[in-house]
Amino acid sequence: MIIMALNCGSSSVKYQLYDWSRKEVVAKGIVERVTIGDSFIVHEVPGRDAFKEEQNCPTHQAAIDLIIRTVTDPKRGVIKDVSEIAAVGHRIVHGGEKFTRSVVIDDQVLEAVKECQHLAPLHNPPNIEGVLAARALLPTVPQIAVFDTAFHQTMPEYAYIYPVPYEWYQKHQVRRYGFHGTSHLYVAKRAAALLGKKPADTNLVTLHIGNGVSHCAIKNGISIDTSMGLTPLEGAIMGTRCGDIDPAIPLFMMHKEGLSVKDIDTILNKKSGILGITGRFSDRRDVARHAEAGDERCKLAMRIEVFRIKKYIGAYMAIVGKLDAVVFTAGVGEMSVKVREMVLEGMEHLGLILDRERNNSAMTRKKETLITTDDSPVKAFVIPTDEELVLTEDVAAILNGTYADHMNFEYAFSRPDFVRT
Amino acid sequence: MIIMALNCGSSSVKYQLYDWSRKEVVAKGIVERVTIGDSFIVHEVPGRDAFKEEQNCPTHQAAIDLIIRTVTDPKRGVIKDVSEIAAVGHRIVHGGEKFTRSVVIDDQVLEAVKECQHLAPLHNPPNIEGVLAARALLPTVPQIAVFDTAFHQTMPEYAYIYPVPYEWYQKHQVRRYGFHGTSHLYVAKRAAALLGKKPADTNLVTLHIGNGVSHCAIKNGISIDTSMGLTPLEGAIMGTRCGDIDPAIPLFMMHKEGLSVKDIDTILNKKSGILGITGRFSDRRDVARHAEAGDERCKLAMRIEVFRIKKYIGAYMAIVGKLDAVVFTAGVGEMSVKVREMVLEGMEHLGLILDRERNNSAMTRKKETLITTDDSPVKAFVIPTDEELVLTEDVAAILNGTYADHMNFEYAFSRPDFVRT
Repeated sequence: MIIMALNCGSSSVKYQLYDWSRKEVVAKGIVERVTIGDSFIVHEVPGRDAFKEEQNCPTHQAAIDLIIRTVTDPKRGVIKDVSEIAAVGHRIVHGGEKFTRSVVIDDQVLEAVKECQHLAPLHNPPNIEGVLAARALLPTVPQIAVFDTAFHQTMPEYAYIYPVPYEWYQKHQVRRYGFHGTSHLYVAKRAAALLGKKPADTNLVTLHIGNGVSHCAIKNGISIDTSMGLTPLEGAIMGTRCGDIDPAIPLFMMHKEGLSVKDIDTILNKKSGILGITGRFSDRRDVARHAEAGDERCKLAMRIEVFRIKKYIGAYMAIVGKLDAVVFTAGVGEMSVKVREMVLEGMEHLGLILDRERNNSAMTRKKETLITTDDSPVKAFVIPTDEELVLTEDVAAILNGTYADHMNFEYAFSRPDFVRT
Repeated sequence: MIIMALNCGSSSVKYQLYDWSRKEVVAKGIVERVTIGDSFIVHEVPGRDAFKEEQNCPTHQAAIDLIIRTVTDPKRGVIKDVSEIAAVGHRIVHGGEKFTRSVVIDDQVLEAVKECQHLAPLHNPPNIEGVLAARALLPTVPQIAVFDTAFHQTMPEYAYIYPVPYEWYQKHQVRRYGFHGTSHLYVAKRAAALLGKKPADTNLVTLHIGNGVSHCAIKNGISIDTSMGLTPLEGAIMGTRCGDIDPAIPLFMMHKEGLSVKDIDTILNKKSGILGITGRFSDRRDVARHAEAGDERCKLAMRIEVFRIKKYIGAYMAIVGKLDAVVFTAGVGEMSVKVREMVLEGMEHLGLILDRERNNSAMTRKKETLITTDDSPVKAFVIPTDEELVLTEDVAAILNGTYADHMNFEYAFSRPDFVRT
């Protein structure tokens, strides 16, 4: 049984083919520059050289068609025929309040996703394009939606309602949604397994630190708060997004420099965060290298990032009750020894005792590592995330009729004996 | 020696006369509706009935003239002649980066305050009006500026720089400033005294919870972070201000409802916060009463306020190191048994153990009360604030030539044997 995962962005389509019986990824890749010209596919199959081909894809449907042709190609492909594809799982960014778990996409679901698209105008439309294209190309294959927001739908009202006019919630659905749900879900289940506890008995702070960054407060295995909000702009400092700032700042700067709503939105999303402070870099590897070499603005950017992460850990400690562990994941969380060290330094009074050697050894995206000492009252782990695996397991469970929401379903990766392939 | 304190708002002038030798307030009051018609003065002298008189005050100078006439009035007054006034202390909201402590106002200082006024366009202009008027009316009396921002100028760069384009800081002074400085200073010094420690050895989280709300992280006696930012809109939820929200929300709502920068600014400052959620109340006493009676939105507003305060306590715990105490002050902090109880409930894992009886007994604005148990690893105090006393002591110390910044000056109220009058 092959499960296909699709992640349609505005100008790219990422894909993965997973063989459920062999429990392994058989192919993955991306079509880039979709709809904007000079598009190309990069197709990777374990054990073979990566394959790249230019091919015009003026639409998402053309890109998905290219993917299907590539994966079924006698030479490049990994399956004989599309009939081997049991289902397609679509990553959908915004599920609003309607979706608390993954679902089979029917017309009603599609309508509901469309109703949310005003909340994610850059993300949901290409996601919907992808669903329609996959439906057209694989009309007999079930299409399943996996939402970035669903995991956070367990947040209590007092965590998701903003202190703004209540009518904004009623009329325009202004509330906290949170994103990166599948990532927080994955690492939370893995952390519980590493702790030898049931997810429902586990209190965690999960830190997804990549180019996009979000933190999550997990109490008894469920999300009770998260740093991203109505949009992915809120929360931690990110590669190019500002995260938490005085909400008067956008208005102040619009007034000062005569900027439009669109201008300021672009600056806060694309030219702020680490890039805004350093003026040059959003990639934390560049920042760390230049900080090391003495660049003051790069040092400052690292200090700001770390200071703000520390505050989120403390804030979430206050609301989850006795904390079991802090989890670092995603590009920076998995790879940056320095950021993790700076975050955990001076946190002994909150029960986090860094083990430098363990932390130094955790710099691969493949390995789960405890980075606190054995007697640290609160543990810290590096856990490489796997959002595609959550999607794949959701899809398989829906096909097999074994699926419930994440609180009432045991993922294969939540078992202690799970081995990542 | 009489010290006069003036606090000039856009349409009001508050005043207080303090007799330095007798160490007591001899008169205080307010002129309301200044510049907008139907203005009146309310004048209070301890031991006498309050006196109210209507009097047209088209300018701040007219209001200050009315105050001077009232305090020197043979019947209503408390001093014989203006020559008894040794100095006037002005509360100035925004001192930008230039002022780290109180100063005598000369032309250079006035110029520097004017340079900050773009950062506080509603507050600094009337403050400046007040200085000019007091100068004109009392030309031989020293005028002294006491800033809301000065106490927070000890914040490190990584706490005050925002993750937005760095040029915004260089060109437009966009950074965190923080406010309520004299209040945080006062309660921090008092908390150290109550703990029997030197301020420089004391780590605190101070919670100023009134209609405006700000929190402060105090490490070794100095402010290292605070919740208000460039403006007083950021941070905790307030009576009518939103506090922390996704910075995309103002932009989203401008787009949705065709609002101008000014419209949205007004809504976020005047119709959000507790008022936004309840739709009816900003006064926490109304909210608590209706919550008690079962009003769902009032219950929600209280839960949101408390949830967010808990998170600030945790966040600041993470950055101050081993915490000595949490301090509640200002209207809600001093008077709301319920809010304090809800904030401290379930915080035992962070070392805060509420003593319900002590908390129940702390509901006066006159008394300092420990509200945690004797064996609570971290203490919590209710400490009534006294911003005017900080101003008065700063003014007296400047006159006496004994003043330095707050780190190198012992306030009378920072002594353990200080008794509030």
